[in-house]
Amino acid sequence: MYLGRIIGTVVATRKDERLTGTKLMVTQPLNLEKAPVGEALVAVDTVGAGIGEIVIFTKGTAARYAADKLQSPIDAAIIGIVDNIDIYRDFINDKS
Amino acid sequence: MYLGRIIGTVVATRKDERLTGTKLMVTQPLNLEKAPVGEALVAVDTVGAGIGEIVIFTKGTAARYAADKLQSPIDAAIIGIVDNIDIYRDFINDKS
Amino acid sequence: MYLGRIIGTVVATRKDERLTGTKLMVTQPLNLEKAPVGEALVAVDTVGAGIGEIVIFTKGTAARYAADKLQSPIDAAIIGIVDNIDIYRDFINDKS
Amino acid sequence: MYLGRIIGTVVATRKDERLTGTKLMVTQPLNLEKAPVGEALVAVDTVGAGIGEIVIFTKGTAARYAADKLQSPIDAAIIGIVDNIDIYRDFINDKS
Amino acid sequence: MYLGRIIGTVVATRKDERLTGTKLMVTQPLNLEKAPVGEALVAVDTVGAGIGEIVIFTKGTAARYAADKLQSPIDAAIIGIVDNIDIYRDFINDKS
Repeated sequence: MYLGRIIGTVVATRKDERLTGTKLMVTQPLNLEKAPVGEALVAVDTVGAGIGEIVIFTKGTAARYAADKLQSPIDAAIIGIVDNIDIYRDFINDKS
Repeated sequence: MYLGRIIGTVVATRKDERLTGTKLMVTQPLNLEKAPVGEALVAVDTVGAGIGEIVIFTKGTAARYAADKLQSPIDAAIIGIVDNIDIYRDFINDKS
Repeated sequence: MYLGRIIGTVVATRKDERLTGTKLMVTQPLNLEKAPVGEALVAVDTVGAGIGEIVIFTKGTAARYAADKLQSPIDAAIIGIVDNIDIYRDFINDKS
Repeated sequence: MYLGRIIGTVVATRKDERLTGTKLMVTQPLNLEKAPVGEALVAVDTVGAGIGEIVIFTKGTAARYAADKLQSPIDAAIIGIVDNIDIYRDFINDKS
Repeated sequence: MYLGRIIGTVVATRKDERLTGTKLMVTQPLNLEKAPVGEALVAVDTVGAGIGEIVIFTKGTAARYAADKLQSPIDAAIIGIVDNIDIYRDFINDKS
């Protein structure tokens, strides 16, 4: 799974009918400093996350399980709202 | 899912027979400024999208569900035509 | 799916028996200018493509469907020979 | 599979219920010099790994098998604790 | 599939039990000049490949088929030992 921040929404009137009723959230992947890294993607919200929140998202078949829509075109889903990230920075550059 | 713009089409007379009747669209991934980012790919249209339109596309097994051709060589599909993208820019560089 | 050019072949006498009889083609991904982009990969030919031809290839489970060998180690396959790519260049840098 | 180091944990109270009871570990991919490379991800621990340890992790459907939760939103899992990595450096730049 | 060179091994005593008996090979992806490109990964050997050999490896579900362990955490496997790579270099920069 990956860390991201919800930064927007997408409206698409003409879409696969299996997306009807889903919330399509623009999700920006984050690095450990919570800074944007890489390109934003569109993930289906499954946990009631809101704009600005830091979330955990998943990709591929895992996203269809998250949305309980296995036979759908979903390939990314938000599966958790992050309360806290504890990083032990001493280990990041440890070469042992 | 990902944001892209349809910028062309591909014609292939000799191809997997399960692609017959599909529209193969050259799709350019976009960043949040709607500028090209990364390399274009070839996606099957499932929503009647046209050249120049901004779309949502999906990859992998999700694309075969989108095309309702689970047992096919499709690994990318256009699944929505974007009406609007709302980005809350204040949050993009938020480090809280 | 992705655009590529067949630039070579791989010979491997000792290999997974499910690859026996397949043609292993070195395939170079291409950008919209038909220039090499990223690293070449090894794809199974399913359409009778030849050296130098521009092709469409697919990855992952889709490649096993293409090869009609679902239970095999194949993760990339050539699924079409490109006759023509029509790009509407005015749209590539459109920001609307 | 990939080499990484566990550098932290993520707490998410509101999450997909199938993640309840899992340990969500912030995992930093490593190169052959055990230096950080690429962005950290969040992997479910399945082997009792601790902060600072070098591990093997897997992605995609393989991660759901690792966690014995095939129908879950998991797409990354820690599957081994590394005792030793033997690299034969003479071969790295061998062009034969 | 991808071209790589086996450059080492990984020992992990504590690991997913479905990896017991497998050989975990550190595999360095190669470009067409047989030079290292991108980061090394850990692949299960299924063909008796040795240190220093150039191999074909596969990723994702294909790797579990290669290892004949579909319900396992394996996501990368070595599936062939390369005897020869024939590259037709005139085609690499062909723009026709």
